[in-house]
Amino acid sequence: MINKLIEKIKKTNAPIVVGLDPMLSYVPQHIQKKAYQEYGETLEGAGEAIWQFNKAIIDATCDLIPAVKPQIAMYEQFGLEGLNAFSKTVKYAKEKGIIVIGDIKRGDIGSTSMAYAIGHLGKVQVGDKQYTGFDEDFVTVNPYLGTDGVKPFVDVCKEEKKGLFILVKTSNPSSGEFQDRIVDDRPLYEWVGEKVAQWGQECMGDEYSYIGAVVGATYPEMGKVLRQIMPKSYILVPGYGAQGGRGKDLVHFFNKDGLGAIVNSSRGIIAAYKQEQYGKFGEINFADASRQAVLDMIEDITAAF
Amino acid sequence: MINKLIEKIKKTNAPIVVGLDPMLSYVPQHIQKKAYQEYGETLEGAGEAIWQFNKAIIDATCDLIPAVKPQIAMYEQFGLEGLNAFSKTVKYAKEKGIIVIGDIKRGDIGSTSMAYAIGHLGKVQVGDKQYTGFDEDFVTVNPYLGTDGVKPFVDVCKEEKKGLFILVKTSNPSSGEFQDRIVDDRPLYEWVGEKVAQWGQECMGDEYSYIGAVVGATYPEMGKVLRQIMPKSYILVPGYGAQGGRGKDLVHFFNKDGLGAIVNSSRGIIAAYKQEQYGKFGEINFADASRQAVLDMIEDITAAF
Repeated sequence: MINKLIEKIKKTNAPIVVGLDPMLSYVPQHIQKKAYQEYGETLEGAGEAIWQFNKAIIDATCDLIPAVKPQIAMYEQFGLEGLNAFSKTVKYAKEKGIIVIGDIKRGDIGSTSMAYAIGHLGKVQVGDKQYTGFDEDFVTVNPYLGTDGVKPFVDVCKEEKKGLFILVKTSNPSSGEFQDRIVDDRPLYEWVGEKVAQWGQECMGDEYSYIGAVVGATYPEMGKVLRQIMPKSYILVPGYGAQGGRGKDLVHFFNKDGLGAIVNSSRGIIAAYKQEQYGKFGEINFADASRQAVLDMIEDITAAF
Repeated sequence: MINKLIEKIKKTNAPIVVGLDPMLSYVPQHIQKKAYQEYGETLEGAGEAIWQFNKAIIDATCDLIPAVKPQIAMYEQFGLEGLNAFSKTVKYAKEKGIIVIGDIKRGDIGSTSMAYAIGHLGKVQVGDKQYTGFDEDFVTVNPYLGTDGVKPFVDVCKEEKKGLFILVKTSNPSSGEFQDRIVDDRPLYEWVGEKVAQWGQECMGDEYSYIGAVVGATYPEMGKVLRQIMPKSYILVPGYGAQGGRGKDLVHFFNKDGLGAIVNSSRGIIAAYKQEQYGKFGEINFADASRQAVLDMIEDITAAF
């Protein structure tokens, strides 16, 4: 799947991923109204509104981008009906030929991580039959539990030829509280990066490993160091746009081959129509605004090289 | 909710929690068969089998125990149908008067953690209406992202009078890989414990805080130190039984008031009928075997005092 991701990045010339993290407040009124007319102001109605919103954004951007990254929390907040919208979004994006990175940040002890890995990347056995659960192409994983909490995800990736992005240095303001603490003269996130590189050696694609890392755009200097520590790991870079990261901050997340990183923007793309810059599109044409925001983001990033 | 948990622990005289982490292989043949007859060998059939299994175990043990801890990964592996079984289990346990600790180990950047907190502990707004998603009483949280990833959970707990157990030192073999690394002369997990104590000061119940910690039974010496660092935090102790922890290892997780810890057993209770010791019950009476295993666990733990 990492080979396929790289191929799609090269083809689109866009090392970006659109974060499908819909808050209900991002969903235009006309979509919400229609969903509530059909299902009422219910969890089902909210799920329908989010799904229709995602569908329109996927339709408007799918020829420009290699991947989407739905953040499962935004769906999980609406319970089962929200997760149904998550599942439909994953399926639809894949039908449209886009790679899906499930931003799930799971991680637990071995047997439990295996269940998560099966549910999101693998196949589950029921009697004599096998089924997929959510069936993303990549997922994000939390490393706090160490190797035996990550290994089951790696094993399922090997089996299914899928991939991971493991949290190394997150984009949020207090990520340093534990991640930056100094251990044997180096910050903890570097030690986590070392482990990611090591886990990744076990399952290499053609140029890069199936096992990537998450490093926030908001910490470009740390990205530079981590790029060296994990030369064969793709870096998923959140924090561009709304969280403050800019194109010029991103250069060092990439390798000299122009590959090695994929930059996420969520709000900046999916709620573009709410920004002054894209106001001319109007709420009704929100998906066109998202398309324009994708084009602008690609230009911002490629101009920085 | 922490007051209610303590009250129930005192009433049952059982500082224990039953981990509802069903693998399909734990579910007796007659339950699986019935579910597959009705729904086929499908994800729906698997969900039904797990739900009927849980229901029988809750019925057989609910007068003896203060709380259950369903591990959401075991449900998530069956996709939406599995999560439907999770949701039904949470609701049923609460109807039976048992406190529910959702073992979800979520944690993300602020706005995303807020969505998880809403989905599992709070209420979500849809138009003019409010709904609950999964509606557990407590959830487990991963601290790797620092304060701003934990704070939204704390805020929702204050609002809803619910609680958290934050991962400090996990029970698995490689938990030490990052958690035990030395930072300023102390292992990282102690620094995480300090933060848990600090976060917990913001929302105190009568004797203990709404904000507790997870510390594995497999590391009793560390539990002793963490007990001192977080005197007002309840400690959820996994790793008893199948993972190797025993009653005598647990004494130091408790405070002198006999409170302060709640010990989880999963496989040891729910798959008791598969153990030689409880073989006499037979597969058909699996729930009676679980009841006996609960009684034996209570005796093992109270005898250690």
